[in-house]
Parts: sequence; C-alpha cells; structure tokens
Amino acid sequence: EPTERGGYLFGRGVSDNKGNLLARLQAIEAYRATIGELPLRIRVLYEGEEESGSAHLAAFVARHGERLRADGCVWEAGYKDAAGRATISCGLKGIAYVDLQVRGAKKDAHSSLATIVPNPAWRLVWALATLKNAADEITIDGFMDLVRPPTAAERAVLEDLAFDEQGMLRIHGITRFVRDLHGYELKKKHFLEPTCTICGIVSGYTGAGSKTVLPAVASAKIDFRLVPDLTPDKVVSLLRAHLDRRGFDDVEVVPGHGESPSRWPIDSVAATAAVAACRSAYGSAPVVYPLLAGSGPMAQVCDTLNIPVAGFGSGNAASANHAPNENIAISDYVDHIRAFGRFLHAFSGRVLD
Amino acid sequence: EPTERGGYLFGRGVSDNKGNLLARLQAIEAYRATIGELPLRIRVLYEGEEESGSAHLAAFVARHGERLRADGCVWEAGYKDAAGRATISCGLKGIAYVDLQVRGAKKDAHSSLATIVPNPAWRLVWALATLKNAADEITIDGFMDLVRPPTAAERAVLEDLAFDEQGMLRIHGITRFVRDLHGYELKKKHFLEPTCTICGIVSGYTGAGSKTVLPAVASAKIDFRLVPDLTPDKVVSLLRAHLDRRGFDDVEVVPGHGESPSRWPIDSVAATAAVAACRSAYGSAPVVYPLLAGSGPMAQVCDTLNIPVAGFGSGNAASANHAPNENIAISDYVDHIRAFGRFLHAFSGRVLD
Repeated sequence: EPTERGGYLFGRGVSDNKGNLLARLQAIEAYRATIGELPLRIRVLYEGEEESGSAHLAAFVARHGERLRADGCVWEAGYKDAAGRATISCGLKGIAYVDLQVRGAKKDAHSSLATIVPNPAWRLVWALATLKNAADEITIDGFMDLVRPPTAAERAVLEDLAFDEQGMLRIHGITRFVRDLHGYELKKKHFLEPTCTICGIVSGYTGAGSKTVLPAVASAKIDFRLVPDLTPDKVVSLLRAHLDRRGFDDVEVVPGHGESPSRWPIDSVAATAAVAACRSAYGSAPVVYPLLAGSGPMAQVCDTLNIPVAGFGSGNAASANHAPNENIAISDYVDHIRAFGRFLHAFSGRVLD
Repeated sequence: EPTERGGYLFGRGVSDNKGNLLARLQAIEAYRATIGELPLRIRVLYEGEEESGSAHLAAFVARHGERLRADGCVWEAGYKDAAGRATISCGLKGIAYVDLQVRGAKKDAHSSLATIVPNPAWRLVWALATLKNAADEITIDGFMDLVRPPTAAERAVLEDLAFDEQGMLRIHGITRFVRDLHGYELKKKHFLEPTCTICGIVSGYTGAGSKTVLPAVASAKIDFRLVPDLTPDKVVSLLRAHLDRRGFDDVEVVPGHGESPSRWPIDSVAATAAVAACRSAYGSAPVVYPLLAGSGPMAQVCDTLNIPVAGFGSGNAASANHAPNENIAISDYVDHIRAFGRFLHAFSGRVLD
C-alpha cells in the first residue's frame, strides 16, 4: 500500500509509472468537467510488461496498428530535474539485458583446491574486466563503432541543457561523477552514450564471516543501455564474439529482454505543445531533453507507427524508481494533471492563457 | 545428525575433523584393551576455532607450552588420495582471509544512471582483475617474490609423488586442471604455490529474472593460501599497497583470520613412524606429501614448540570438506583406528609385525 509522508507519496511504481497513468485519466476527466468536450481523439495504450521487455507488445501493435495511429505520443515517464525544473523528453535509450553464467567443478569444493581446480568466479571476473575498463570505456569489440557521434544540433541542445550537477551528486550521495566529468561531456555521456552495467553478480559464499569455499558457479546480470545504431541483437552477437575471441567460451550468455532505442525531434508538434503546456502549468520554461537515459518499448510502438514522442510527468530527480522508497511529490502529481490537460488543449491547436 | 548410506557416513565435519578426533581416542582405548599400557605419553590438544582462525590458540600455547611439549605431532587432517592410497602430510599452507568492500551511491539507483554514477560492482571487478590474471598468475605487487622456489629435494619428492590426475578430474567433474597442467607442474602448483581465491562475491540484484539496478555496494571474500615466506600480515600489507598504487583506494580491505604456513621434514621420526603404521594397517605403502594444501593453526603450535608433524586420517579424496555431503567411508574410519594404534607402537620404537 502507498504511504503519504511529508507531502510525498511512497510506494512501488508510484513514479514509474502508476502516478502518471492515473493523473492523465484524471486530467481527461477534469478537462471534460471544466472545459467540455475533448478537442481531439485520445488513444490510451497501457501495458504491464514494460519492466520485463514488453514481450507481447510488438504483436499487439502489428495486429491493432490502425487503432493506434496518432499524431503524437505522450510517453509514460517524466520527471523534474535535480533543480526542480519540469523536463520533457523526446526519446529513450534501448536496452539489452543479459545473464552471464559460468560453471566450474560439479559442486563447491574446499578452497585449498583452488591451486588446480578452475574457479568460475575468477573466470567471470576476468571476462567482465574485458567488457569495460576502469576509465568506464566499453571495450567490447565493435560496440562503440555502432554509436553515432553527436550531430552539431545535438551538441548545441546539450550545451544549452540545464543539468543540476550539484543536485545529482547530493541526491546520490557521491562526491564526483564517473570519470569526474562535468558540463557538456557529462551530459553527452548521460544522454547520448550507451552503458554496460553490472546490475548483479553472485558466486560462492556471501553470508557473514568467512567460508573457505571454491565456488562451482558464478553469474552476473548485465544491462546495456543502447543508443543508435545499437540494437539488442547486435549487442548479444558482439558480446558472444568478443568473449569467444578471448577464450571465454565457458562464459554462457543468456539474453534477457531487449528494446531498441527510439529518438524523436525536439521540435515536433507534440514536443512544442508539451513545452507550452508545461510553461503554462509550472509558470516557467521546462528543460527539453533529447531523450531519457532509461528504456522502454517506445520503438515497438512509435517507430513502428511513426508517432513523434514527448514525455513529461510527475516524477522528481529523487523518485528512486526501482529502489526502496520510490516516491512522487503530491504537488507534482496535481501539477501533472494540470500540465496534461493543458497539453490536450495546446496539441489540438488551441491557445493556452 | 550424521547419516549412514552405502558404507559412508555423511555429516557436517565428519571428515574435517570429527572422524579423526574420535577414531584416535578409540585407538587409544583399543591399544589399552588389547596390548596394554601405552608405550608413550600422549598429549591431546583439541580446539574448536580452527575454521575461523584459532584466535585464542596462540595465547593458550604461550601459557601452557610446557604441558604441550612433544617429540612428534599427528595433525588432525588426513585423506586417501583419488586412487585410494593412504597419504601422510608433513605441513600445511598458511591462510589470509580478507573481505573486499566497495561503496558507491548512498542507495541502489536506476541503472539508466550508470552513465554517470559510479558502480561499486565494476570497481570491485576491476580491482580483482588486477590481483590475478587469466593465466592464474597472482599479480599482486611483490607477492610472488616471497614464494620460495622448490629446492632440489622438494622437486625430487614431488617428481616421485603419486597423484591421481584422472581421479581428481572425475571427482570434481572437470575436464582439465587450471592452466591445463599435468605431472610435476601440477603437483608443484598444488603443494608449493600460494592461491588467491574468490570464495564469494555479491552485488546488486541476484534473484530470478532481471532488475535494472545500479548497486550501491559490492563485496568479495578472498582467501590466500600461503607458502613460505608469505604471512597473513605481509599479504594484507602488499594487497593494500597494490590497490592504492592503482587508484583503488575506494576498495576497503577488511582482514579476516590468518595463519602462517608450517613445513616439517618428510623423514622425521614422526613421519617415519606414520609411514610404517600406514603400511602395516593398509597393507601398502602410503604416499608422503610434503604438505596438505589446506591450512590450520599448525605454526601456532608446532613451530612455536618445535614439534615435527605427520598427519594422516580417515578422509578420502571426495570427502567434500566444507561442502554439502561431507563424508568418510566407515571402513576408512576403522582403518584409521588401526593405523593410529600402530603409530603409537612404532613411534615409541617398537617393531610392527
């Protein structure tokens, strides 16, 4: 059950993304109750498999594409930045989630045998260390070759983009960013570059105290956030070839869910209407991101049907999606109702006062 | 509770080392019941902290050393090899157990932030990969410099040492040893070289399916098996300096239990009596190892009091110490009673028939 505390609502999925989904339905109700008939046709597509790869969405879109056609899409996610500014995002990174698994002896052995019996935990560590170096550069053969360098226009957008570095450091309790980056380079890495992340790793004894054991199995969960022209299939294929080339044929790659990246113009009709709606609702100009660094089935829907995207919502920079204490401010929830109602008005060509 | 199945006794500690400890008391009883007065004075030292570093044993030895003086020591551990031959061991490796711990953000974050928020799991993997390379060579600065090369005598012993490679491969369910070693090189690595073993590693999400999380903490448990002149203090000190030199000052080293290595002549009176006793009890010559690759508080007792060591016992090559299904053969238990009784006879200078 969600909990209200200090003006915030805490609960699993309250920011990602139950809050936004409900606020928008309430905005539609509010529009009808206060202004009258909706000025445009709204198609609502809510699906519940986003966090595990939306395995059934592509088939749904293929089957019902005609009923999903639209001139613009408001994506589910949206957040205030660390400085409290509303943001609008016009795309998502893709994702490729893989499990790496290594087996050694048929069961755990006494660690004195580590002299001669292979240790899958070491095999996994050595394999992982070839994927990304300590400068945080992804070193999988051919991987970075697929990353498009920023265009002059993208660079200009990022140069101008407001990004509250001190706020982000404070929220995450860290003293510096990866590579000690700042300014444009930090924004470029965050918005336009892929990731290779150990989301989890486990082998052997992990309890309190010590156990002198030689583990029989080791595994890691890795997620790659993808930018054009990386796709899940390409990543899995490059990863397998990279490991094989280095003798890590004992490291099994088990592909999990995947999504391709999706990018849309920051000056589409949808994005322009979102800017006007947020300015009116919040009383100040929103920050327009070229994309969110997260992932979702945007390509499955919007690339397939060619629908430009603008995303905005009720989250904040410390919403802690997927983590304990996920939250939204109740005032942000109400503001999102107001902003979404104004978006409907603006997107249909009406003037906001 | 222990379980008897197919001529074997299964239970925690049945091989390491309750079986041996009880068998020896029964051997003393049997000697008295069948032959008469013991031909020598026996001092029995059983302590229960061996698996966690025997933190109180050194003080006990310092206080009661006079009451522990002896001409020979039968160490607690002893095993048949993979070919079923009795073995005698005249030393132990030392051990240094450490926890490596890394902290990142103040709590787990959404993995899309991996672009800019440091990941302690990666920091740990990169740090670990500097400790040992994929050829299984320990690469900690100065570590291998402290390992004494084999003497000509040690080499001769190992050249002659019976070591059932096929049996070991079969028992552990592997197709080859580390570095694909065989023969003398395999035995040299197992008996005379140190180890650096990931006994456990954990970070982030390790359950079923996927979770796109950027972990806040990562940790690994490492055990080093030590040969002369490595000691626990030297290892911890070298490790800290090695990590600092490479910028891994964020990797905390938490020292756990430690033991120095202990080595004794394979032709001491104790070892010679053990060979005679095993030959008489088993009907064939035992294999004499320069040492067991495991660790224990041998230096705390025997180096302090200068007592030569011979270890033999009721374990087998698949006893699975510290693992599920730890076991001994009941016939090996009975044979150890017989061998230990004969050892008492031989060590006191009496002739075995």
